[in-house]
Amino acid sequence: MQPQEKETEISQLGEFGLIHHLTDGIEPKNSSTLKGIGDDAAILTYPDTDVVVSTDLLLEGVHFDLTYVPLKHLGYKSAVVNISDICAMNATPRQITVSLGISKRFTVEHMEQLYDGIRLACQVYGVDLVGGDTTASRQGLVISVTVIGDAPRNMVVRRDGAHDTDLICVSGDLGAAYMGLQVLEREKAASAGRPDFIPKFDGKEYLVERQLKPEARKDIVEALAKAGIKPTSMIDVSDGLSSELLHICKASNTGCRVYEDRIPIDYQTAVMAKELNMNLVTAALNGGEDYELLFTVPLTDHERVSSMKGVHVIGRITRPELGCALVTRDDQEMPLQAQGWNHMA
Amino acid sequence: MQPQEKETEISQLGEFGLIHHLTDGIEPKNSSTLKGIGDDAAILTYPDTDVVVSTDLLLEGVHFDLTYVPLKHLGYKSAVVNISDICAMNATPRQITVSLGISKRFTVEHMEQLYDGIRLACQVYGVDLVGGDTTASRQGLVISVTVIGDAPRNMVVRRDGAHDTDLICVSGDLGAAYMGLQVLEREKAASAGRPDFIPKFDGKEYLVERQLKPEARKDIVEALAKAGIKPTSMIDVSDGLSSELLHICKASNTGCRVYEDRIPIDYQTAVMAKELNMNLVTAALNGGEDYELLFTVPLTDHERVSSMKGVHVIGRITRPELGCALVTRDDQEMPLQAQGWNHMA
Repeated sequence: MQPQEKETEISQLGEFGLIHHLTDGIEPKNSSTLKGIGDDAAILTYPDTDVVVSTDLLLEGVHFDLTYVPLKHLGYKSAVVNISDICAMNATPRQITVSLGISKRFTVEHMEQLYDGIRLACQVYGVDLVGGDTTASRQGLVISVTVIGDAPRNMVVRRDGAHDTDLICVSGDLGAAYMGLQVLEREKAASAGRPDFIPKFDGKEYLVERQLKPEARKDIVEALAKAGIKPTSMIDVSDGLSSELLHICKASNTGCRVYEDRIPIDYQTAVMAKELNMNLVTAALNGGEDYELLFTVPLTDHERVSSMKGVHVIGRITRPELGCALVTRDDQEMPLQAQGWNHMA
Repeated sequence: MQPQEKETEISQLGEFGLIHHLTDGIEPKNSSTLKGIGDDAAILTYPDTDVVVSTDLLLEGVHFDLTYVPLKHLGYKSAVVNISDICAMNATPRQITVSLGISKRFTVEHMEQLYDGIRLACQVYGVDLVGGDTTASRQGLVISVTVIGDAPRNMVVRRDGAHDTDLICVSGDLGAAYMGLQVLEREKAASAGRPDFIPKFDGKEYLVERQLKPEARKDIVEALAKAGIKPTSMIDVSDGLSSELLHICKASNTGCRVYEDRIPIDYQTAVMAKELNMNLVTAALNGGEDYELLFTVPLTDHERVSSMKGVHVIGRITRPELGCALVTRDDQEMPLQAQGWNHMA
């Protein structure tokens, strides 16, 4: 968190004054938003679509570290991780509410930066900020986000629809956000006690960006609709590929086979794994926060899905008794395990 | 917070295990809930109604004090304060999501108590628990609640519809929850350093209950519908009558007159104000957390609203240039001020 040139204490504005200051000029853009901020509740209408709702709680010291996460990026990411959940339902994000718990060390200018990021995400993803709650906090910054979206009737995709012989697909590449976190933690450690320290991200720019400014794959949801594909199941990769695949297989009562040589990995991720002496596939399977979409499609969609830009077929769904396994380059089967991100551990 | 006989560390279950344990057996009851807990997002449908969404963030040490608030009551109240916001829109609460940040001093049994309260509120108000997020917290308990409700088309009531000559009505009585807080704080202070201390609530039971176990006035929303009354504006009294009236008048561009002798006050509230040497009307005007409904109706509804049980006509809406004032028993006009609850102060 950078020191501010101009500092305004939040108590100068008060709760209502702060909300008004941060949300001034916001005009709803979606036709489903009848009334946004300014009443006891937002008013929405969804006469022709199914509605999906997802919520996330982000706590300082657990989910983010303000020594290296700029507040604007944090605002952007807080919105994006929830928008990603809506995309994972094959739906379009429409409205967002943001509640903040703010401790005394934050100023109005800090909250402006955070809201700059939230408002940017709203703009990029076409989402209306329709409400929230702002309060004092004893325990650092608390961010709670709820996103509402919609999809045409019967087009919402759940986790539990995968079938034997379905193809397993994933967008983008995996493991980069996790490696970005390693880069940031390494530079943080190196900077300890050195106020003049300048962190080095040369050749790691992609990794750092994936960690600090992830994107939700709304474009993939749109591309699927355009290609005429309705996935049989879908989830976003927030806790690592292994963990998410196990969710799909458990919910769908199936097994799966994922091929090591098919897992998409960026070269910066590979270089960083080498530098850290980490197993690259482990990082790609268990590193979290990629926010790519993992989905299954019927075998008959093979051609259509193969021609989609930025989508990789990485395996297949099997009968449940075959279990869930990674097929390595030397054709060994290793059981998939949900190491993932366990904040409770 | 009471010590537990049987204690299970939350890490024994992990995040997914804890959610499963706490939400096991929950079956959606509302036809608008297509799919509750267990996917990236809940799936809802509202083909024939308008949808309202409200969210609140409750932080330990700011909004609640576990030295005297039992966890079950806290769970109940966390749900109720949001359900109250939905009622304040003249809508029916349908779904709730609950996100928890849990610090290490809490056990699985503690979270069971909290969820007992949340589930009880869901049962009492006919609400489906459809999602949430559970994470570790570095300091204290964090509770974020979002409630979704609906109302027949064009029946949602906002803050901004009050008109000159409208009657101002309020349900129940005011100031009791604030006085309940004073009782609890007094007993907490008296108990300091005395482990064998037994708090005394004789003659204060109603006040303590209003503070610890408030109710949302869903019954009033139903009674209004039955009486064929659509209020012109409505808000719930969470920050004190003065503050809420000023919200309505500002949003509606009106003034108002409230009559001191019409403000409904329970006798326990009056006795406690006397004990504490506090001005009773100040407590009723500025004490928060009553969660009663404050609304305005056209003058032509006078007879209908007067015959509603538990509803009091306390004043009238005026032209904006007359400002907002309390008319005292001796016919003096005192400008209304928003002291209310300012967590940011």
